Amino acid sequence: MTDPNVERKLVEIMRIISESDKPVGARLIADELHNRGYAIGERAVRYHLRILDERGFTKKHGYIGRTITERGKKELSDALISDRLGFIISRIEELIYRTDYDLNTGKGNVIVNITYIDKDDFDNAADIIRYAMSQGATISSKASIFEEDSTEFDIYVPEGQVALATVCSITFDGLLLKSGIPVSPLYGGLMQVENHEPEGFVDLISYNGTSIDPIKLFLRRKATSVLQTFDTGTGKMLANVREIPAAAAPKALEMLELAGKADIKGHICIGEPGAEVFYAPVSRGMVGIPVMTGINAVAAVEEAGIRAETLPVSTVMEFRRMKEF
Amino acid sequence: MTDPNVERKLVEIMRIISESDKPVGARLIADELHNRGYAIGERAVRYHLRILDERGFTKKHGYIGRTITERGKKELSDALISDRLGFIISRIEELIYRTDYDLNTGKGNVIVNITYIDKDDFDNAADIIRYAMSQGATISSKASIFEEDSTEFDIYVPEGQVALATVCSITFDGLLLKSGIPVSPLYGGLMQVENHEPEGFVDLISYNGTSIDPIKLFLRRKATSVLQTFDTGTGKMLANVREIPAAAAPKALEMLELAGKADIKGHICIGEPGAEVFYAPVSRGMVGIPVMTGINAVAAVEEAGIRAETLPVSTVMEFRRMKEF
Repeated sequence: MTDPNVERKLVEIMRIISESDKPVGARLIADELHNRGYAIGERAVRYHLRILDERGFTKKHGYIGRTITERGKKELSDALISDRLGFIISRIEELIYRTDYDLNTGKGNVIVNITYIDKDDFDNAADIIRYAMSQGATISSKASIFEEDSTEFDIYVPEGQVALATVCSITFDGLLLKSGIPVSPLYGGLMQVENHEPEGFVDLISYNGTSIDPIKLFLRRKATSVLQTFDTGTGKMLANVREIPAAAAPKALEMLELAGKADIKGHICIGEPGAEVFYAPVSRGMVGIPVMTGINAVAAVEEAGIRAETLPVSTVMEFRRMKEF
Repeated sequence: MTDPNVERKLVEIMRIISESDKPVGARLIADELHNRGYAIGERAVRYHLRILDERGFTKKHGYIGRTITERGKKELSDALISDRLGFIISRIEELIYRTDYDLNTGKGNVIVNITYIDKDDFDNAADIIRYAMSQGATISSKASIFEEDSTEFDIYVPEGQVALATVCSITFDGLLLKSGIPVSPLYGGLMQVENHEPEGFVDLISYNGTSIDPIKLFLRRKATSVLQTFDTGTGKMLANVREIPAAAAPKALEMLELAGKADIKGHICIGEPGAEVFYAPVSRGMVGIPVMTGINAVAAVEEAGIRAETLPVSTVMEFRRMKEF
């Protein structure tokens, strides 16, 4: 038995192989997986391919690549029905569950966003990200850079690009869960900022019942004005909201303060029980916790005219191995 | 007492006036309302301004325009808290309620989408829309065209543009409600089409808990391939899903057939009780009804490189006054 995350990748890989009319190699599969939002490298693809071979779903043709077997086709058509459409909340909850960063020992995983930037643009982009960090617009001042030939971690990097891992605001959800506090991500949205202070959400999209990450939808719409907000104090930035039981608010506050000391920052406040928090509705008996997302730094990069492609809430990564950016 | 729809516009108009440092005229307000997704004309703006004057929220300065009063400012700041962030579902449910088209007499209102196209592009756009209609990709073959100087209906038309009203798929929700069947719009999504037949949703966004129309989000992402679907039978088109109680399925089917005879078409099927319909989840005891949206015609126009701006689920319009396009 493998975990559901592996199963999802296996199905996606079979789908890629079945869509080709000739054998497909691991490199091409990694490329295509990347296009479909999976940040896994060639080495990991090989590992998954071996599982598929063992199950008799794919067949290896020497060095040319793999084709799908009849048995694989049957498996794929069965899998498609349940797997075809994945709601983003399942994926997010899986990563929340896998967050095991320990605020006391400093060991364990946080959730990261992965951003791909052209190698030639990277220095300029890095300057903007550092500027965003200096403005307190990121979750952490730590990040990880992956170059094409990077082997230390299995992050896929397309040719000519650099992958940047930054701490994702959903890490807070993981930390809350690890503290024994039940947590539900509610909305991703656009926060109006006035005089450098968050004023209220002007748009919200629920994490529930969407197959596309809400923050990604706002990024694609080019709806932010992060650079302008830094300059003038007024503008629109990305933020999200989660809710926890009102009774857990004191414990959550304690945890969030401890996280801040460990360089995991960005929550705006803890709301009142059952009350809207910055106009975002919260369930009865719950309190809302809005957080400015780490993606704001990337939004600023895009606003500056630099092309970047971001996979929000992408994977988990050991926080200790991320470096001061 | 005015209806909530009027109240919403009043607040928006006050907001526009308060954001300007000099008096603002009706024309400018109509322009700005249009930018914010309200398709109301100058004449209607004047009507709303008179209400605001009467309430003492705005003050008229001859022909120069209006400014906001202290009382208006106070009212606005109170209204902002509840009005600031409107979830799209409230707006849609209001229009569903206002749909009163009678399938027997042929009288009454349907819901329309409004699309703005540059005057110079309109002939080319119209050809594509007619092509889409011939492919059965719209809800109806009827439409209404509004030119700049149009006075017959209070649809706002910016200078140099033409506004096109096409029947919106949410009209079905209105017809179902009018037949006494409780209906909930569930998702807007991207439907994969194979061999000219819908195969299944590949992306879904819930109508619940978003302040931006899901169909508009997909349009903005340029995620469709409507023209390709017409040509090859394979591609991605816009569709949405609503659910009704399973017990009402026979009555709904009857109504949908009657609607088809009145040139209001486009439902794909009625699903099985509690079962996913084209991979879209449906609640227990309910059946899902997917409908290809009328916006597909506009998506095709945009795919052809013609700029168009669409307000989905925009307003209601008497169906009898819409003409064969």
